[in-house]
Amino acid sequence: MTQAFWTDEVGELLRVRPGFRLSEVDPSATPGTEARKHAGLAELERAAQELRVLQEKLFAQSRLGAKDRLLVVLQAMDAAGKGGIVNHVFGQTEPYGLALTAFKAPTEEERAHDFLWRVERRVPEPGVIGVFDRSHYEDVLIQKVRGFAPPEEIERRYRAINDFEARITADGVRVVKIMLHISPEEQAERLLSRLDDPEKHWKYNPGDVDERLHWPAYMDAFQTAIERTHSETAPWFVVPANAKWYARAAVQRIVISELAGLSPHWPRPDFDVAAERQRVVDSLDLRWPA
Amino acid sequence: MTQAFWTDEVGELLRVRPGFRLSEVDPSATPGTEARKHAGLAELERAAQELRVLQEKLFAQSRLGAKDRLLVVLQAMDAAGKGGIVNHVFGQTEPYGLALTAFKAPTEEERAHDFLWRVERRVPEPGVIGVFDRSHYEDVLIQKVRGFAPPEEIERRYRAINDFEARITADGVRVVKIMLHISPEEQAERLLSRLDDPEKHWKYNPGDVDERLHWPAYMDAFQTAIERTHSETAPWFVVPANAKWYARAAVQRIVISELAGLSPHWPRPDFDVAAERQRVVDSLDLRWPA
Repeated sequence: MTQAFWTDEVGELLRVRPGFRLSEVDPSATPGTEARKHAGLAELERAAQELRVLQEKLFAQSRLGAKDRLLVVLQAMDAAGKGGIVNHVFGQTEPYGLALTAFKAPTEEERAHDFLWRVERRVPEPGVIGVFDRSHYEDVLIQKVRGFAPPEEIERRYRAINDFEARITADGVRVVKIMLHISPEEQAERLLSRLDDPEKHWKYNPGDVDERLHWPAYMDAFQTAIERTHSETAPWFVVPANAKWYARAAVQRIVISELAGLSPHWPRPDFDVAAERQRVVDSLDLRWPA
Repeated sequence: MTQAFWTDEVGELLRVRPGFRLSEVDPSATPGTEARKHAGLAELERAAQELRVLQEKLFAQSRLGAKDRLLVVLQAMDAAGKGGIVNHVFGQTEPYGLALTAFKAPTEEERAHDFLWRVERRVPEPGVIGVFDRSHYEDVLIQKVRGFAPPEEIERRYRAINDFEARITADGVRVVKIMLHISPEEQAERLLSRLDDPEKHWKYNPGDVDERLHWPAYMDAFQTAIERTHSETAPWFVVPANAKWYARAAVQRIVISELAGLSPHWPRPDFDVAAERQRVVDSLDLRWPA
């Protein structure tokens, strides 16, 4: 038997606790495992099947009326690896049970509504794993750091977010919020590698450097947003993300734990199996062309 | 060097031609390859990377303004394997560049609109591969077979579909329509296997047998729909689907050919690469915590 990849329940290690300080999280750490990259990639591959089975059960039971679903919110500085998480963790699930939304700068129509309007419309349906690449948290991160909204409006938004998340939780949505945490040195390296590879130029945005220069203010805004919106029912997890393999395996494990916590099960049929079997058997002489 | 899996351009073999007769297509055939299941699964795995690169280029160029996109319409009798195609062909692409819609019986709101209303809203954005699991073709298939709409309305719909598809084609959408073709014997076997496995009960719908009993009428409706809506710019492909591995590999190859035909390319950056590089380098001393 091979050594287990996780030596500890990683979700418990990365879940935000009272007194949480972002400045004390080492973005290069790999809590919960002694393994390195090669084993991490193998674990990611292995556990993908575990995730797919849970997802299929969640989806299957929704067809018979269960309302449970999962919403994973991904927030991070640019180039922290949100895209890689989407492709390598959620890209290994079945498309029917996945609803991805990549939120951009709000459109004119979106700006004409309250900040939660566009988010509400993207809450996953029963049975589905919803993934937000950026989210309503942009409205208390970039909007706060860049002064796009005044302090009292930012205050209002923390409360509005808590109300919103409590409401959808009561409606069957398990809300899981994940910050991918990289160091500014790691970000610089990744931005340079995008600039040095013509096939990656399209992923580079000059605005990323503008935001980078506000790093300390962003970290303050993350600290405050996490403090103000973390709860038992809509928890934050801060995932060290300098090692991509670690961040992917850790997010995958958190998602698996949260899904398992919903205890999805194959639904009981709402039809008479034996009678349906007979109907099919009775039609076995059907031929076409006749 | 290993023998090529495809001995022929499978898209050309399966594309509908003048004088097409559905009754002459053998659902158990495997045109374009001499290989069998094991090699088919290996080909599916191998070509997935080819598909991902094309998809990523299509997506990348859309970020810089290109409007090209692909819409794959999947139609078939129940249990013909649409779900397997979605999971095994499109499930191997990146979630950002995939938009799947599974159309169900129309809701009350949808029925209050023209039949194309709900379809129009799901046309993929530039850069994205849209997949329709069922589509506006239900409105000339089940609706015709079951008499839910009168003949003159069905006639109107063929024309409306052609107008609609011509319009979105002109807007940059490559429309590819695929019928998965199984035999009634194969369908019976698959329905029974769903009934014999409690983990598959949720996929079974008693209505599937109701529709099965109208098999000849469905085949007539497919024949007519294909004749009336096939065109150079929005072609139909009829894929023998009794062998799942064949149908998946064939659809994957058709999608790859159609994407390659759009010649997607890594876009040229709209910023000064050297200047951006310098901006990142200038910020290399950024540390946090300071």
